[in-house]
Amino acid sequence: MSIKVCVFDAYGTLFDVASAARELALQPGRERLKNCWVKLANDWRQKQLQYSWLRTIMNKHIDFWSITQDGLDWALEANNLSDDVDLRKELLKLYFNLTAYPEVSQMLSDLRSNHILTGILSNGSPDMLNGAVQSAGISDLLNEVISVEDVGVFKPDISIYELVEKRFGCEIREVLFVSSNCWDACAAASFGFQTGWVNRSNDPTDRLPSGNLVIMKDLSDIATLVV
Amino acid sequence: MSIKVCVFDAYGTLFDVASAARELALQPGRERLKNCWVKLANDWRQKQLQYSWLRTIMNKHIDFWSITQDGLDWALEANNLSDDVDLRKELLKLYFNLTAYPEVSQMLSDLRSNHILTGILSNGSPDMLNGAVQSAGISDLLNEVISVEDVGVFKPDISIYELVEKRFGCEIREVLFVSSNCWDACAAASFGFQTGWVNRSNDPTDRLPSGNLVIMKDLSDIATLVV
Repeated sequence: MSIKVCVFDAYGTLFDVASAARELALQPGRERLKNCWVKLANDWRQKQLQYSWLRTIMNKHIDFWSITQDGLDWALEANNLSDDVDLRKELLKLYFNLTAYPEVSQMLSDLRSNHILTGILSNGSPDMLNGAVQSAGISDLLNEVISVEDVGVFKPDISIYELVEKRFGCEIREVLFVSSNCWDACAAASFGFQTGWVNRSNDPTDRLPSGNLVIMKDLSDIATLVV
Repeated sequence: MSIKVCVFDAYGTLFDVASAARELALQPGRERLKNCWVKLANDWRQKQLQYSWLRTIMNKHIDFWSITQDGLDWALEANNLSDDVDLRKELLKLYFNLTAYPEVSQMLSDLRSNHILTGILSNGSPDMLNGAVQSAGISDLLNEVISVEDVGVFKPDISIYELVEKRFGCEIREVLFVSSNCWDACAAASFGFQTGWVNRSNDPTDRLPSGNLVIMKDLSDIATLVV
């Protein structure tokens, strides 16, 4: 590959969203959450994604922060936790206090040492992304943080992937795009990027149009892949 | 309401998809399916929906029969059942041998007795829908069976709901649209139809734009609602 730019999805790819909810479930006084946090986290994520896709098709965009709250409200109700106002507040706060996966800092440093430009391309609103990047301590390691809010639709609309060329002034074939969401990776590969799918939980490949996907277990091997 | 046309979603609304898979799991020799059929059916349905939405956004349409197979292949792999070729064949065959929910025939008869036109508006391909309508024995009770294949995108694209006006020659406000999928009902209500959401499993309402939804437990009260 002759890669000049390496762009990452944010939530689940660079930032560990699930671990934060897991830690909250371990806090004293969170007995109700302890019994259902896996289902709650899964319901939340599923509705968050569904609403982003459905609103894109319905042409009824709102930003990802609103969608994140809508998804959580559905999930809390489905798990009989709607009355726990404090829990809702704490779960939402997690999105602004995320940690990066352990391999992320070194991986980004290695890319930069090798003169590869780095960035994020995410559904997240600019505020959410800035919060997460600061909290994870990786702001100095990223050249660009690109939010879909620049165009007002969500992935996998093709106009989102076009933002990378515009912001980096590069060509499609010079980009390696990496996501832990298989559908996101498929769409990016279909668009023409070199693409890596980080399959942390050993899921089946989505049956969607795509080019070749490089499948990896985590982000450790990215630098050896592009240099 | 001054309703002249009553249009129903198909799978999950008129036709009981889950019961068929459940019965298959009870057959002798289906021990592996018995342990995981609930998760398999759920994975299958989720991927079927996801692929319909993602392909609509990606502008990469294939018909719902192909998507149904793609979703099943993902679900079989996720449940370690990819090697059971016979199971795949039997599960797919179910889509052509569905039964209607017990209240459907009487409900459609009552509508027709009251000079309300009836129809289906579904993601299903024409072949799938014809098979299901024949198998459920309700073809004489429907004026129109409308497939999204007439336009080549999936729900909730607005062009799908527009098909109802075209095929029935009616106005939007004269239509009652009924679906068991809350997102489908929200989109239809947002489009301008009078809308009923059949909430058979007591799910929370989706946090999506919509008009007023009439929520019902099953289809028994439709006729009293429109006459």
